[in-house]
Amino acid sequence: MKEFTIRFMPQDKTVSVPRGTDLMSAAIKCGIALNTSCGGEGLCGKCRVIVKNGKIKSDASRIIREAEKKSGVVLACQAIVEGDAEIEVPKESLGAFGKIDSGAEEFTKGVILKEEGKYPVSPLVRKVYLELAKPTAEDNISDLDRVCRQLHLKIDDVLVSTKLTSVKHLSEILREGDFKITVIMGRKDDRVEILAVEAGDRTNKNFGFAFDIGTTTVAGQLIDLNTKNILGTRIAFNKQAAYGSDVISRIIFASEPDGLEKLNEAVLDNVDGIIEDLASSCDVALSDVYAVTCAGNTTMMHLLLKIDPSNIRKVPYVPTTNVFPTAHSAELGLETNPKGIVSFLPGVASYVGGDIVAGVLACGIAENDEMSLLADIGTNGEIVIGSKDWMIGAAASAGPAFEGSGLAHGMKAVKGAIDKVRIDEKLGVDADTIGGSKPKGICGSGYIDLLCQLLKRNIIGKDGRINRELKSERIRKAEANYEFVVAFRSETDINRDIVINDDDIENLKRAKAAIYSAMTALLKKVEKDISDLKKIYIAGGFGNYLNIDNAVFIGLLPDIKRDIYEFVGNSSLAGARMALLSREAADKASEIYKNITYVDLSSEPGYMDEYVAALFFPHTDEGRFPSVRLSR
Amino acid sequence: MKEFTIRFMPQDKTVSVPRGTDLMSAAIKCGIALNTSCGGEGLCGKCRVIVKNGKIKSDASRIIREAEKKSGVVLACQAIVEGDAEIEVPKESLGAFGKIDSGAEEFTKGVILKEEGKYPVSPLVRKVYLELAKPTAEDNISDLDRVCRQLHLKIDDVLVSTKLTSVKHLSEILREGDFKITVIMGRKDDRVEILAVEAGDRTNKNFGFAFDIGTTTVAGQLIDLNTKNILGTRIAFNKQAAYGSDVISRIIFASEPDGLEKLNEAVLDNVDGIIEDLASSCDVALSDVYAVTCAGNTTMMHLLLKIDPSNIRKVPYVPTTNVFPTAHSAELGLETNPKGIVSFLPGVASYVGGDIVAGVLACGIAENDEMSLLADIGTNGEIVIGSKDWMIGAAASAGPAFEGSGLAHGMKAVKGAIDKVRIDEKLGVDADTIGGSKPKGICGSGYIDLLCQLLKRNIIGKDGRINRELKSERIRKAEANYEFVVAFRSETDINRDIVINDDDIENLKRAKAAIYSAMTALLKKVEKDISDLKKIYIAGGFGNYLNIDNAVFIGLLPDIKRDIYEFVGNSSLAGARMALLSREAADKASEIYKNITYVDLSSEPGYMDEYVAALFFPHTDEGRFPSVRLSR
Repeated sequence: MKEFTIRFMPQDKTVSVPRGTDLMSAAIKCGIALNTSCGGEGLCGKCRVIVKNGKIKSDASRIIREAEKKSGVVLACQAIVEGDAEIEVPKESLGAFGKIDSGAEEFTKGVILKEEGKYPVSPLVRKVYLELAKPTAEDNISDLDRVCRQLHLKIDDVLVSTKLTSVKHLSEILREGDFKITVIMGRKDDRVEILAVEAGDRTNKNFGFAFDIGTTTVAGQLIDLNTKNILGTRIAFNKQAAYGSDVISRIIFASEPDGLEKLNEAVLDNVDGIIEDLASSCDVALSDVYAVTCAGNTTMMHLLLKIDPSNIRKVPYVPTTNVFPTAHSAELGLETNPKGIVSFLPGVASYVGGDIVAGVLACGIAENDEMSLLADIGTNGEIVIGSKDWMIGAAASAGPAFEGSGLAHGMKAVKGAIDKVRIDEKLGVDADTIGGSKPKGICGSGYIDLLCQLLKRNIIGKDGRINRELKSERIRKAEANYEFVVAFRSETDINRDIVINDDDIENLKRAKAAIYSAMTALLKKVEKDISDLKKIYIAGGFGNYLNIDNAVFIGLLPDIKRDIYEFVGNSSLAGARMALLSREAADKASEIYKNITYVDLSSEPGYMDEYVAALFFPHTDEGRFPSVRLSR
Repeated sequence: MKEFTIRFMPQDKTVSVPRGTDLMSAAIKCGIALNTSCGGEGLCGKCRVIVKNGKIKSDASRIIREAEKKSGVVLACQAIVEGDAEIEVPKESLGAFGKIDSGAEEFTKGVILKEEGKYPVSPLVRKVYLELAKPTAEDNISDLDRVCRQLHLKIDDVLVSTKLTSVKHLSEILREGDFKITVIMGRKDDRVEILAVEAGDRTNKNFGFAFDIGTTTVAGQLIDLNTKNILGTRIAFNKQAAYGSDVISRIIFASEPDGLEKLNEAVLDNVDGIIEDLASSCDVALSDVYAVTCAGNTTMMHLLLKIDPSNIRKVPYVPTTNVFPTAHSAELGLETNPKGIVSFLPGVASYVGGDIVAGVLACGIAENDEMSLLADIGTNGEIVIGSKDWMIGAAASAGPAFEGSGLAHGMKAVKGAIDKVRIDEKLGVDADTIGGSKPKGICGSGYIDLLCQLLKRNIIGKDGRINRELKSERIRKAEANYEFVVAFRSETDINRDIVINDDDIENLKRAKAAIYSAMTALLKKVEKDISDLKKIYIAGGFGNYLNIDNAVFIGLLPDIKRDIYEFVGNSSLAGARMALLSREAADKASEIYKNITYVDLSSEPGYMDEYVAALFFPHTDEGRFPSVRLSR
């Protein structure tokens, strides 16, 4: 088939693609990641590019205004190559996928939970220094036997196994080190495996990575396994976003030719990028990193390990596995020492994964006599309720709205995101951004504040519809929608107005309804009441800020005493870190995943009613939200 | 550096090599394996080639006769490239390395020992057929959990672990097979690992290979793991012979640049050649082969696994390991199913390896109440004495003479080898060859017969020296030596006379002395006498024939009742087969290697006296050989 040449500017990258290719794919092919939060469905409008010249076919889109159309603006995901062309990529359309945002370090590090201190230090990988007797005619056992003989004097009585790779250069290493060596041992199943042997005393260089592999973001920490010190934290957008914003669209993409490979490469790129960046900035040699622990939802784990996830989205939602065997770094292709190991937090079911088990571990829910609740408000939204005696978990199908996805100007809680909003009586808007710069969009906590303020100022009603009666330059009709301008073009960093529209509010309403009703439906299932909860842990990508009062005001969270709430940040990362640092914590995670009973809310009687009743602000049953007073 | 072009005929292969390369290396580089039994030292004369034209420098050699020199004959290992050249390779100089000799199948299959029948069938790899319930909304555990749940109903209570690779395509396979599947399980350490899952019922296709990796030959068998049937046997010369004939010269070569890689590649080529040949001729798909078990001496195991063997030859003779962890086929690079496993018989020490442990297993020495002895007369010569209560083992440093190496016309027990010899009173020679063809050389059992006849006809004396007084066309001076013509040029298949000379006899005498004195020294060490032995097992590459009377006559074996002797052929291969077929046999091998006490004869007081006393035919102490009557 004839190929055409597409040049992207200002990157000055050129790619040859066959007729019929969309510009989004062409851009990906030459390494340019465009923004998308709808996964290439033509809905979010974030992949705007400008056709400078050439033959590009683009259907009319209600997202692009007439004036834009005249200057050549098209949606890259909907624009089809029909000849050579030159394309301009506006700065604001450039995706941040995979870009490491060190400004987010503070948020992601999150809360170091008190739970974490309870576990003894017994990391996934140990280094033991041995001084061996040199071989003599009377004592000429094999090199490996010599190592094991001394090792068993130093370590507890554990079963030690070896792999061929760790034996291969043993004789040279022993003699290079004059029989003074460091044995690197990793935990695999119920045994300890000799991963490698190094010459000399290398025990002071023992590092590991903890990862939370999220659908939207990938967060990693470099940890000194001797001291438990967190040396650094990085967060990056999951590069898989170029192929779809949520797990369902990625599972569908995985079934396309090379789809699974592309998704796998994308997330490995993320993980390796964080590994390289952190190791280099902390001056840690990658060869000194033998341990990695990952937590993530079940789909992310399948994609990370290149396992076909297709049955996760087909009835009855069966993953290939919820428990992933500890693997060698080389099997995954990570940049850490190839003899090192990678362990994974076990999951419960297709939609309650290892990230949630990690969260339960980090919050100590399975240790408590009293009942508590964890709500992880991320791309999906999962709820676990229970105590040390029993646990029950469900996924809320909330969608990624509170991560900023699928909204006209939604974005993650990173620099430039509006995270606090106040609206005065004259509908003037005062917004704070993370980092204090000009706004680029609105993050989850910003939307919660914004909804709360819109309600208080009667800009939206209980049903979330923008009040068409109010006269204000901020309220206007746009295509089929009404929208409210949060920041005008001159105030923003994106050369456009930042708005919230009816569709956005509908999205957010459904998300909050899904999470709230999941909580109440689960409580009903175990015949408990919200008042029985002694603690509610809120996890998720809200950055370092979540206004609980406002979250209650919009009906996202139940209206109970505020000191019941604890914001725990990225509890998945915290749990991964705990499993990396402590055998006992890892064992606890294995106990947790077995003890959580998974509930499929969609087949739960009464759930639908709960959900529909929650599709108002704050709720159809106002009696449930006594502290919320709305003027009418 | 300038390169020159060397063309080898009649192969018509051309190679470019720098000035100074020897012709042996040039030949190897273009895939032509020349004969060598001295390892390229210019001593054996088996790599004769003819320089047809070009600049080749060759020092005078006493091995090449004047007439040969005139026609351009040089030793390839000693001939140096100084310009372009054309080289003719005579048929008899072509090495048989790696050539699979299916005629040897009968010998190698050897004795199926009664011991073998005693062990239950519990092969290294099992296939279990499962019909799984299909997932439903009520029963939607993960695919792996579904497999394991059913598996545990079918198999004994063993610890099952999985590897990432066996999980990767599980979901497709389950659905492809409509949830009827075959689980392939392999033994690793004390657990069972799920190696793979296949769609449908594949239990009737379960095959494995047993290998004896010898210094001189590599022997393999394809076995149906369901029926224990041996489907075929192949033997090939170890291709490493091109780099040295014995373990010491190969260990030295391994330290040269790329030496270890070349030796590893050579033996892998052997193993893969046998695997492919047997699988194809038995119509077995390589993907149905998940199990391989190897026995071999400690150096061969190091080279097979690309482990540096250098300390095996340095005081105090320490191997990297005697126990080799079960590996995946892919780690070795074998042609069998890459998810399959390879297990190794454990060894005792640098010079008593897994081949001897296999032999002890095959002969049942460690099961017997009474004391017996195993003598494995191969490239080295190892002895084990003992019973179920104790065992003691040593290496005899006999050299490979009885495998035909290092002798003017020595060869392995394959087609064309003289294996039986009679000399009449007029010194006429009547020789049988294996396969009945014209002789190419003499194998171990042929040399034993020949020495016996030479002694009986007074052609050699008790000291082994050829009788210079006898007048016969068969006895003649050749350079510094005397030699006896066994077959004249016209009778042979190699265009030269086949002879035995003083050096050959000296070599054979030292070899028989080393083996005999190792037996007696070991017996002395445990304060036992030959008469205490209830059984003597003789293993080694003698083909299907060893005349015990003649072996006693030359003093190789003790002069005791002949029914004590049992010729067991390749007991290393038999032991490997047993460990492949039975978990209990493999466990027994692990018991055996721990229970054999290794004795270093060179530091054993009295051994040297024993050895020197044995450097006569049959022995200096004639009283030990009452049945031997030599005319004087």
